[in-house]
Amino acid sequence: MTPTRVVAFGGGHGLSASLRALRHCVPGLDLDITAVVTVGDDGGSSGRLRAERGGLPPGDLRQALVALAGDHPATRRSAALFQHRFAAAAGGGAADPLAGGSGGAADPLAGHAVGNLLLHGLTELLGDPVVALDHAGAMLGAVGRVLPMSRQPVGIEARVRGADPERPDEVRTVRGQHQVAVTSGTVESLRLTPAAPAACAEAVTAVGAADWLIFGPGSWYTSVLPHLLVPGLADAIVSSPARRLVTLNLVAEKETSGLSLPDHLDTLGRYLPELKVDMVLADSKAVGDPVAVERAAESLGARLVLAPVAVTDGTPRHDPAALGAALVPVLGADR
Amino acid sequence: MTPTRVVAFGGGHGLSASLRALRHCVPGLDLDITAVVTVGDDGGSSGRLRAERGGLPPGDLRQALVALAGDHPATRRSAALFQHRFAAAAGGGAADPLAGGSGGAADPLAGHAVGNLLLHGLTELLGDPVVALDHAGAMLGAVGRVLPMSRQPVGIEARVRGADPERPDEVRTVRGQHQVAVTSGTVESLRLTPAAPAACAEAVTAVGAADWLIFGPGSWYTSVLPHLLVPGLADAIVSSPARRLVTLNLVAEKETSGLSLPDHLDTLGRYLPELKVDMVLADSKAVGDPVAVERAAESLGARLVLAPVAVTDGTPRHDPAALGAALVPVLGADR
Repeated sequence: MTPTRVVAFGGGHGLSASLRALRHCVPGLDLDITAVVTVGDDGGSSGRLRAERGGLPPGDLRQALVALAGDHPATRRSAALFQHRFAAAAGGGAADPLAGGSGGAADPLAGHAVGNLLLHGLTELLGDPVVALDHAGAMLGAVGRVLPMSRQPVGIEARVRGADPERPDEVRTVRGQHQVAVTSGTVESLRLTPAAPAACAEAVTAVGAADWLIFGPGSWYTSVLPHLLVPGLADAIVSSPARRLVTLNLVAEKETSGLSLPDHLDTLGRYLPELKVDMVLADSKAVGDPVAVERAAESLGARLVLAPVAVTDGTPRHDPAALGAALVPVLGADR
Repeated sequence: MTPTRVVAFGGGHGLSASLRALRHCVPGLDLDITAVVTVGDDGGSSGRLRAERGGLPPGDLRQALVALAGDHPATRRSAALFQHRFAAAAGGGAADPLAGGSGGAADPLAGHAVGNLLLHGLTELLGDPVVALDHAGAMLGAVGRVLPMSRQPVGIEARVRGADPERPDEVRTVRGQHQVAVTSGTVESLRLTPAAPAACAEAVTAVGAADWLIFGPGSWYTSVLPHLLVPGLADAIVSSPARRLVTLNLVAEKETSGLSLPDHLDTLGRYLPELKVDMVLADSKAVGDPVAVERAAESLGARLVLAPVAVTDGTPRHDPAALGAALVPVLGADR
């Protein structure tokens, strides 16, 4: 029997949760997992690398790789290395006989994730981010493939109402993924710069060959919707014979503080009107009034599935085992 | 049959040549290879890391790991990643919509070898350089183990006569491995700072359990002799039941421009008078007058073996295959 081919879209923590959940479906299901990752990050270590050296922001790609890293102790340790952030420099330190005059030296590595530097170096060495990601996946014994949504880094811009709390009715442009993610206003529209980046060809191929496409959880405007704004990817998503699942968030992110769960679903149809969805998965408690969510799901053609998928300590995080358990009957169902 | 346990001492290119030659002895011989590496580097990427962040200079350790990297295409590619040096930054570049204002940003990564950053990060993550080196070796599928001569970085200082060409008789102190390596004067004495660093315990154990200890080729003052100046390592070398081989250089390095091949052997006895050597291996052509070298070898208790071990293009480099072929009868000989 051929494995069930699953493509998961996202970026950052939400995508990691989705990928970890998919791992929990194995070996109950035989899955072939591909992650397609946004490339709009401009904050932190990724933002510094991108601004100083160019290339794709590696942080979200790294997170997806680590979420798929193999279970062998050696690959787990390599995954920990990818995630490790260089500490603030201690200087040469008392142990070094040569350290005398350099205590005040600059600290250019502090805060960089080792895996970000490694992905950047691999891309420089091999000349292509997809080849680099495939090799990094091999280094981590990854149980799936990680692809960027585009080989070009993109900018994310939003028209936001009330970004300035003192001018609640003013609409202004907020630029940059980080700024959009933390804005306190209401996002009225979203766009990428360039407006129509080329889709990663391998991602388009994976979407075309998939049995399931999974959107979310994640920061809606900066990790989920950007995929729908890449024309080649949007076309592939609409025309793929795959079934489509949306996993809803547990709580509104800051950027979506004005957005209810039904609104989350509505935005999908707004940015990609041709999108049809088969299933919407939401947490039984977090969903609140299921009727409104059910109605929004139905307007995309989807059935709402409720399951307990949050961690039990009360923090708004998906539990990979619980989310995986909820995914098994969905992904394993016959057409 | 148990493998023949070989410990190779050195640093930098000479040690890499020795390790690559040892790999060429396999599978004709069943070898268990350990490299013991100097930790005095203060130049380039290693020097910057050491000055800015402390810890062992990783460059020579990285070179030894790469020399032992496995033959699988994936581990060869990882080895290429370890060796890759970050290019000078191109800035965000025209392809990045966010790169506008950052063209003149600093370029803190340029020139760093990816493997140096990876070893530094691994040591920071795992808390110990030996554990870090063992993991890096696993990442590279290494066919042997790489150990530092000490867990402490050291300084290298030399008293040099005529370091200033205009004052040929003046003796002055030259500080730092890089400065000692490039000095144009005659090294009169060598010392480490601190003068008696603690030996790496795992290196001491490997020396005690070895069948063969191999010294050189390499920069004599900065890669070969420093091992003899670490008291715990010198004791282990002298008291080990192993046989001892010295592989002589093909030409004098700049630092040893005043040092003939017999002088190279004499310095070993000068810095470690109890040292007995079993074999001295020299290139048939480069040796010049074999009688003087033979006499110097005999004064250490050693027999001189001549073999064609240089590359055939005339450059003064050891050919790993030829050096390996010369080592097989030496290492394979019964006591």
